[in-house]
Amino acid sequence: MRPSTIGIVGAGQLGRMLALAGYPLGLRCLFLDRSPDAPGAQVAPILLGELQDAGRLAELASKSDVITFDWENVPSTVLAPLEKLTAIRPSPRALEVSQDRLHEKALFASLRIPVAAHATVDSKDDLLRAAREIGLPGVLKTRRLGYDGKGQFVIRHAEHIDAAWASIGGTGLIYEKFQVFSREVSLVGARSAAGKIVYYPLSANTHSGGVLRYSIAPYVNVALERAARRYLRKVMEALAYVGVLAIEFFIVKGKLVANEMAPRVHNSGHWTIDGCVTSQFENHLRAICDLPLGDTRALGHTVMVNFLGLMPDRERLLGIDGLAFHDYGKEPRPGRKLGHCTVVRSSPAARNLALAQTLKLIEWS
Amino acid sequence: MRPSTIGIVGAGQLGRMLALAGYPLGLRCLFLDRSPDAPGAQVAPILLGELQDAGRLAELASKSDVITFDWENVPSTVLAPLEKLTAIRPSPRALEVSQDRLHEKALFASLRIPVAAHATVDSKDDLLRAAREIGLPGVLKTRRLGYDGKGQFVIRHAEHIDAAWASIGGTGLIYEKFQVFSREVSLVGARSAAGKIVYYPLSANTHSGGVLRYSIAPYVNVALERAARRYLRKVMEALAYVGVLAIEFFIVKGKLVANEMAPRVHNSGHWTIDGCVTSQFENHLRAICDLPLGDTRALGHTVMVNFLGLMPDRERLLGIDGLAFHDYGKEPRPGRKLGHCTVVRSSPAARNLALAQTLKLIEWS
Repeated sequence: MRPSTIGIVGAGQLGRMLALAGYPLGLRCLFLDRSPDAPGAQVAPILLGELQDAGRLAELASKSDVITFDWENVPSTVLAPLEKLTAIRPSPRALEVSQDRLHEKALFASLRIPVAAHATVDSKDDLLRAAREIGLPGVLKTRRLGYDGKGQFVIRHAEHIDAAWASIGGTGLIYEKFQVFSREVSLVGARSAAGKIVYYPLSANTHSGGVLRYSIAPYVNVALERAARRYLRKVMEALAYVGVLAIEFFIVKGKLVANEMAPRVHNSGHWTIDGCVTSQFENHLRAICDLPLGDTRALGHTVMVNFLGLMPDRERLLGIDGLAFHDYGKEPRPGRKLGHCTVVRSSPAARNLALAQTLKLIEWS
Repeated sequence: MRPSTIGIVGAGQLGRMLALAGYPLGLRCLFLDRSPDAPGAQVAPILLGELQDAGRLAELASKSDVITFDWENVPSTVLAPLEKLTAIRPSPRALEVSQDRLHEKALFASLRIPVAAHATVDSKDDLLRAAREIGLPGVLKTRRLGYDGKGQFVIRHAEHIDAAWASIGGTGLIYEKFQVFSREVSLVGARSAAGKIVYYPLSANTHSGGVLRYSIAPYVNVALERAARRYLRKVMEALAYVGVLAIEFFIVKGKLVANEMAPRVHNSGHWTIDGCVTSQFENHLRAICDLPLGDTRALGHTVMVNFLGLMPDRERLLGIDGLAFHDYGKEPRPGRKLGHCTVVRSSPAARNLALAQTLKLIEWS
């Protein structure tokens, strides 16, 4: 049996964890990335090049049985010609929708998935009108290429509008009503080409400065989980999606409001490596390789804490009983995601204790 | 933080699984092996060369913070000079003992660990005398380089002696009384340089033709587990052992008789990847890198089945709920260990059912 080769666009930590999940399945990964020491390139072979370089992408496609993504912002016009060379999963169409907050919200709304009131903004006049019609506070965001709170400006009062415009003003923006939420949760699931879907338990995510600090899972709320699964399924089916998809939600007055989706494995699903029978990484690979999807059952009550900007003292952290450590092999830089750790416990109380122990040993920059 | 580099002598499946366990810890592995497509070389960089080549070993040592082993039969005379260049864990002395069945049994006996009656054999006269004094049936074995039943001949009747001698006769042999055992079990544990020891649950191993077919764990027997731990601890302490060590035992009339030890991660411990909080591979790395040892607790009732000679149908096998698949990236060849799979269940009965399901889908050659 010859292993299949998975072409991965982008060799960040998501790609790295995909490649590591692939080896036991007999799958070999090949990355496209501009950095020869990228996290993924440390664990699997790489083609050096820009992620949007049509020639390099064609080379990747010619060497791969299926192409997938660590980074979802490759324009669909660049990807479309590759579909003649190999399978692309998820599809260029799914990536296209998720690349643009406006299209994403339009899809959600068309599927009756609740979203925040919003308006497209291509001029300062648009922004003034949107703020007046939708109301304050609100968030001005770039429609494309925003992540981890980058390309966002919270407008709390009318006098912030000038500053917001000075900061990120231009065309291709969206203004959204600020959501006063009690919790941020996310749902990760995987869909096979044949239409089978598996869902992980909901995770509750704590952000700070727009970046995920930690997640706990399962976040137990039967009604919300049922709604989240229904929404994820609707999106997957509308896009004929293949692979892992994540949707982030706000809980607003006890109901879910969809914030954004990610057409790939997701930081809020990293806990599944140690906390579930089959991880999101393995299930993404199983889905895109037409293998049966694995069991998404949680093994206990898990906390996942990101390492941001600074690597913690590995030795001290590994002293926490049962802690699993995940180093992405990156150079420290303020705010950068360098790794994460996971602890699985048998009760929510024990998990909360582990969270406190863990946070005490982790500094963020 | 720069990752430490682990030099691994031999790039077989054990080395491969070590390297895969090392990446999340921020450890990078470098192999020495003669084959550029060896299982380990598919997942980490490699120096090409013979495993006993002093020059290549010195190069490996100069590039590594610590050296460890996928293959334990490097002569200690070749390893000793490397100790000036870097740490070698486990020590050349531990390898030396385990390379020779006679020395191994002498160590066991000196620590009052029960072993089968045995005698050294360097001539046919020695064999005739041993068979007479120890009795029949017995097993004639090479003292060195035997594995998976190779280099062994079972002598059931006096008329088999000529055939045994014709088959493997010579110098450097051992004759052992044949053990009529009810079970083969093994204990895997890890010891840190500071002397801390962790033990995995006992596993019960089913061999056929001298090769491990499957293991179930935990094998629950409080008295035997206590004895096995005591024996493993004695050996580790006698050798000032650092890393993972495994001892295989026969259960004879309800008591343990030590068969052999392996100064490395062991096939009967592969179940710990999916069946325990921290795997034997991660704990070996933690031990040799002076990191705290991880939790060896079992997550449930596990069965591990080897793929021997033929790869099974991956798709059908992954259809078994919760099954974890491990492909070593090797070319099929009769009897060769090509991979394994693991299923964890919540009860022994459910595990036995999973074993039956799994065996139905696996053929051996």
